[in-house]
Amino acid sequence: MNKIAVLLAEGFETIEALAPIDVFRRGGLEVTTVSITDNLQVTSSQKIEILADTIISKVDFSQYSLLVLPGGYPGYVNLNENSEVQEVIKNFILNNKYIGAICGGPSVLEKFEILEKNIFTCHHSLKKLTEHKNFRKENVIHSANLITSSGAGHSLDFGFELASLFLSEEKLLSIKKGMEL
Amino acid sequence: MNKIAVLLAEGFETIEALAPIDVFRRGGLEVTTVSITDNLQVTSSQKIEILADTIISKVDFSQYSLLVLPGGYPGYVNLNENSEVQEVIKNFILNNKYIGAICGGPSVLEKFEILEKNIFTCHHSLKKLTEHKNFRKENVIHSANLITSSGAGHSLDFGFELASLFLSEEKLLSIKKGMEL
Repeated sequence: MNKIAVLLAEGFETIEALAPIDVFRRGGLEVTTVSITDNLQVTSSQKIEILADTIISKVDFSQYSLLVLPGGYPGYVNLNENSEVQEVIKNFILNNKYIGAICGGPSVLEKFEILEKNIFTCHHSLKKLTEHKNFRKENVIHSANLITSSGAGHSLDFGFELASLFLSEEKLLSIKKGMEL
Repeated sequence: MNKIAVLLAEGFETIEALAPIDVFRRGGLEVTTVSITDNLQVTSSQKIEILADTIISKVDFSQYSLLVLPGGYPGYVNLNENSEVQEVIKNFILNNKYIGAICGGPSVLEKFEILEKNIFTCHHSLKKLTEHKNFRKENVIHSANLITSSGAGHSLDFGFELASLFLSEEKLLSIKKGMEL
């Protein structure tokens, strides 16, 4: 199936969400932007107004194999406080499906066991998480089904690491060439 | 004044337009996203639907000191074929104001003398431009009032070079730290 869902909350970090999608769509992967409210329109933390593809209540997440949690303030707080998002994450973990989280995104996983079982990274400002035994100060970490990244400056690397779950090395190189990398 | 206008055409490259804006707004710079049609809604080449801040006919460009031309297909073709865009560019050049162009963006400048007077870079697929005597194969080039970049993979570097026109080294470093760079 290889379908990817990117959750968009009010105040999501613009390129943390969109740079991975840029890579995914260049690679021909099927990706859905999902507003976590009933409103398709979502405004990023840099005041970019996006129309999401759909809203969370309409998505059959059983059809998806990767869930992406962007950071951004207050985006990651809004992801944390949304019960539907919590339910989706719980099911992804239960079914051993992939989760990608960047910047403040990994904090949304704090209440689940996944951070106990994998090494991870996150934004340096998240004091509680950076003191966790499994925290590592790196740009991108791929640990079993969990892929994490530290912040917006590494959005493209994060996107390529996620895309590598589904695409060949040859395809990734061709995407990079198109982006002049 | 230090105001920045980013022109959005149907089929603009997502992060070529939005990564610079991310940097600008983190730096507190005043930036306006401008749809080049009468429609605020613009769809990127990666099918991200954005609501621009305004439309081109409503903008007083005399108040702006930097014009940004993203690439993306068919975004840069649409910039090229739009007479209002041509008029705006002509006035920016006449008034010695800054122009930033990335990927296919520099091709929109081909009919003006600015490419004769400055070295520049652009996407490797633009055969005619890459054979120009002033073309250089680099990631980002700053030549007098013209700042160019090769493609999407260098969107952030392009954004930082543009932001450096208006922000101190200290401020740029603080933005980079926030982005984990």
